[in-house]
Formats: sequence, structure tokens, C-alpha cells
Amino acid sequence: MITEPTSFSAESYFATQPPPPTLEHDVERVTEWVQKQVAAGRRVVLVTSGGTTVPLELNVVRFLDNFSAGTRGATSAEYFLKAGYAVIFMHRQFSLQPFSRHYSHSTNPFLDFLEIEPSNDSSDSTPRISVTPEKRADLREVLTVYKAVQAAGTLFTLSFVTVNDYLWLLRAVSQELSVLRRKALYYLAAAVSDFFLPRQKLSVHKIQSGKGSLSIEMDQVPKILKPMVDEWTRDGYIVSFKLETDPELLIPKARIALERYGHQVVIGNDLHRRKFEVVFVSRNPDHQTNGDTEFTENWLKIDPALTHPGIEQIKEIEEDIIRELVKKHTAWIAVSPTST
Amino acid sequence: MITEPTSFSAESYFATQPPPPTLEHDVERVTEWVQKQVAAGRRVVLVTSGGTTVPLELNVVRFLDNFSAGTRGATSAEYFLKAGYAVIFMHRQFSLQPFSRHYSHSTNPFLDFLEIEPSNDSSDSTPRISVTPEKRADLREVLTVYKAVQAAGTLFTLSFVTVNDYLWLLRAVSQELSVLRRKALYYLAAAVSDFFLPRQKLSVHKIQSGKGSLSIEMDQVPKILKPMVDEWTRDGYIVSFKLETDPELLIPKARIALERYGHQVVIGNDLHRRKFEVVFVSRNPDHQTNGDTEFTENWLKIDPALTHPGIEQIKEIEEDIIRELVKKHTAWIAVSPTST
Repeated sequence: MITEPTSFSAESYFATQPPPPTLEHDVERVTEWVQKQVAAGRRVVLVTSGGTTVPLELNVVRFLDNFSAGTRGATSAEYFLKAGYAVIFMHRQFSLQPFSRHYSHSTNPFLDFLEIEPSNDSSDSTPRISVTPEKRADLREVLTVYKAVQAAGTLFTLSFVTVNDYLWLLRAVSQELSVLRRKALYYLAAAVSDFFLPRQKLSVHKIQSGKGSLSIEMDQVPKILKPMVDEWTRDGYIVSFKLETDPELLIPKARIALERYGHQVVIGNDLHRRKFEVVFVSRNPDHQTNGDTEFTENWLKIDPALTHPGIEQIKEIEEDIIRELVKKHTAWIAVSPTST
Repeated sequence: MITEPTSFSAESYFATQPPPPTLEHDVERVTEWVQKQVAAGRRVVLVTSGGTTVPLELNVVRFLDNFSAGTRGATSAEYFLKAGYAVIFMHRQFSLQPFSRHYSHSTNPFLDFLEIEPSNDSSDSTPRISVTPEKRADLREVLTVYKAVQAAGTLFTLSFVTVNDYLWLLRAVSQELSVLRRKALYYLAAAVSDFFLPRQKLSVHKIQSGKGSLSIEMDQVPKILKPMVDEWTRDGYIVSFKLETDPELLIPKARIALERYGHQVVIGNDLHRRKFEVVFVSRNPDHQTNGDTEFTENWLKIDPALTHPGIEQIKEIEEDIIRELVKKHTAWIAVSPTST
């Protein structure tokens, strides 16, 4: 399915594709929020989450999408907040969000655990509605953290739909966060399309099915980690994700990414094992032989049985991922910028 | 973008594409539920809702999707329930659902209107959690209908993800509902892909981006309204939807569909006007000249200003659509099956 190369550099991409109309307004809000975090001396993490779309029509009826409910990103954002980070949660519209993710309308609908209380007075005030006793303890835990985060203003939510929205927003937010220098962490968990249709090639109206088959030719999305490391950020700690379905490809592809882009960590995960097993791949700066980079691989595994939905005390691998990253980030902050 | 024709008949489609693993179990549950509705003498509507996906890989990372949050279907299902229908709500996993649709995690998060009550006794029981006074009236209205529907068992929910799941499920459910004869209504609001990739052409693993562009060739999904009318259902009232972005195409395409498939109504809607304007297109059986079918078009419009989210008393066009359809369905039921 791969045909002749078409390549956009990040530069030519932004020069030819239009920014989303909400970008300017979003960036203003980010600037203001970042200033508050700087003043409070907080570490800030940008968490990207969910899949990006590639519209096939200008008046969008059909689009290419990447599989992602946003579980990794939403769960991770929650653990970062618990660890004291301020979080920019940049997610695909309608994908899972921290806190509310526990109450999916499909699997744990909140209407099921609300009850209308019988009025016990004769006034005509609206009857109270309350959470059923068996759900109270669970919900109280989530709600307490949620309210604390709302009060502290440490969660800032942004959304995107298309891969174009995502790329523009990522660049702008990264640039805003660069003032934080080493205190900024970038956790790129979104499932970003490798391909897109340039604006100039889009059909205006819904593609008609007529009597034929559909043939779509897409160009490659520019690799943005390189400019992110070199231009958009300053000394930030950058973590990217690699999802594969063929386990053989995971580590080789993670190594290539680190070599090519020069960021700090690739977290590799296999589509079918991602809930209980990931691998941290990083360069080992102390061991270089003949100019070849050496790599460290650390597997992080939990018991798959503990991840089954419905068990009493579920274990989330993101808890361990974030604990590990906070350690690495702390060490990163401790190094003075000039020594690297 | 349209190339040479590849055509699957409905028959060859089901002969070559595998059924979803959950089909058998789903159908058993449907059979049982339908029997209850027959016993209760209820009218039953099948509402399909949300978009279907077309996976590009067997281990799905990427897929083609159709734009749809499921608003039309979820809203309509609610009005059908209020009109006394029993509803099979066959929807895209994670798309909007009746009742919970009012509390989107993005725009109206329910965690925002819950509060933990201060304990006013010294016992160590978990504190109560209740809905804030200003949200009570709204929520009470939704919750009351929701609880009544749960108690009556008149809402049956099924979900699909891929267009293949959808087609298999639609055929099976339609066949189950055929025992209801004229009392069955089919309201096909899902945004179904016109194209798909046959199982035999799917790549096993994630398509690698390498250095090339992506080229996808898809086959046409068989037109299933014809076998639905002729084989899967018996005297049911069938309503299909047509969504276009070019207003010029709406009515001609609706007419062609009615001519070709022989069902009762096409509801046409324009992508940008669908919240306040739809057109009912139907054949006019009393006026045929020279064998040409004549058509009736009825526009149904509401004030766009009343559909803006955030206004006090929002008006939903689905309320009027369902009122109109219930009238038509009542007339349809009144005609004896042999007279048509």
C-alpha cells in the first residue's frame, strides 16, 4: 500500500496548511495559565491524548482516524496531578478525560447511581437527588481529587480533532512552555496519524459513491519531534510513545526515533499488552563505543489479572509509568542546563 | 478519486465477510426482548445511530470513519420512548446515548454538579453526595424518564464499531423484528460507510509509514435497503436518512433511493442545517403518470435560534420528526397488509 514518497518538512507544512481558527484564542489562555504555574513554582506536563483525524472532505463527512479512546493520556494526567504537576491536557474532542473517565456512559453510567429522594416535607421545593450508598465511597475519592484540582487550577484542558489542529496546537503550546525550561515535561501519548491530505487536495463536498471503489492517496505528516527538540522547546524533558502490533518492531523503532530526534525517552507498547507491559527506551550517554549510541531498555510490567475491569482494586500501569517518569524528571531538573 | 467498479451484492457480502463474534449472543437477547414487546402489544422501533468504521488493518490501529456523534439517533430514541415505543438502540460504541447525552463529559460534566455533604453526625459512615440545588430540576426531569424506561424495560441497547458489525447486526435484528409486521418501525440514522476493505485485503499489522505516501483502495459496501425491504423485514415501516453537503443533491438522491429500494421515507438533511431543517421525501402512490413515480416533499423547519446550546429552553427538531413519523406509522398500521 506504500507508493512513491511525498514529503513535507515541518516548515513547509506550517507554511502551506492553515491554522485552526481557535488557535489564537487557545494560545492566549495557555500563556496566562502558564504564567500562574511559573509564579507558583510548579512543574508542568503537557499530556497529549486520543487519536487525530484526517478529513477526506472539506465539508467533513468521512475521515481517517487512529484507534485511541484516550485511556493512557487521561489516566496519566490524573497521576501527574496527584504527583503535584500542573497539567495541560491536550486531547481529542470527546476522548476520555481525567476523573470523568471512571464514569463512561456505556460501562458505568452515572444516571444509574443517582436517586431522587422522596420529599419529606410539604414544601414545593424540588426533591433532592443523591448518590446511592453503594457508590458513595468510590465516587467520593474521585470527586475529592477533582474538586481539589479545580480549586487549585492545575488542570488546563485543550481539544483537537484533526491532525492539523494537533500539529498547530502542539507547536504553539510547546513554545509557550519553553519558559519553564527543565521544569517542563512533554508526554506525547496521542495517537497521531502518519498520513494526511493537504488542504489543496481535499474535495469540497462529500465524495459520491457512484458505482466505483474509493481510492485515497495520502502524504506523510512531517516528523515533528525533531523541530520540537531543536526549536520549539528549551531543555524540556520529552517522552514519546510508540505503539506497534508486531512486537519485533518495538525496540528497533524506538531506538531509531531516539537517534533521529534526540529526545529523552520512548515508551514502547504493544497494542494487545499495553495495559500491563511497556518498555522505557533511552539513550545511555555514558556508554558510547565508536560513536555508536548505546541504549537502555527498562521493562515495566504488572500482573495482567490486576487490570481486568470489574475487579475490586484495579491496578493501572500508568501509576508506575508516572512514578518512574517523575524520578527521571527530578534527576533531569537537578542537572544544570549548561552541563549537557 | 473514484476508480473502476467493484461490487458486492448483499448475498456475496455475507457469504465472504465473517460475522462479529458477539452476534449470536446479541441475537439471543434480542429474540427474548422482542417476545416481551409482542406480549405487551407495543410498537417497536429500531434506531441505528453513530458512524461505522472501516479498519485498515486486522490488528486495528487505523480506520476510516464517518462523522457522527450520534446526536440524531440518541435524541430520536428518547422521543420514541416518550411516545410509548419500545426502542432497540443500535449504536456505535461510545457514541451518544439517550438520557446520558444531556451530560457530555466535555460540555456538561456531571462531576461539576455533585457535592460532598459535610457530615453532621459523629458516626464514621461515608458522607452523602448530592446534586447541587441549581441542577436538580433539570436532572430530575431526565432521571425520572430514565428510571421509568429502565423499569419498563423498553430500551434495548446494542453496539457496533465496524461497518461489518453494523451490517450483520442490522440484518439479524431486522429479521427478529419481522414478527411485528406493521408494528415495526426502522429508523436508520446511523452514518454508514459507503466503502469498505474486504477481510481478504486487510494487512495483518500496522501499516508502516516508511518513506512513502499511503494509498488505499476500497470496495463498495452493498446497498442493503433493497434486501431489507424485500427479504429481512415484513411490512415494516422503513425510514432512511440521506446526509449531503451539497444541497442540490439532496432531493434527487432521496428520490433515487426511494425508487430503487421501495421503502417508505427518506429524511434528507444538509450537514450544516440538520439541527433545524430536514425534508421528508416519500412516494405518492395515488399519482402516477405514465408509470413515473411522483414524490411528495415535506420540509420540517424550526427556528435555528432555538437550537443554540446554552439557551434556556432548547428546541430539538427530533421532537417534530418523531411526532410526524408516529402519525405516518399509525396510518401505516391502520392499513391492512393485503391492501398494498
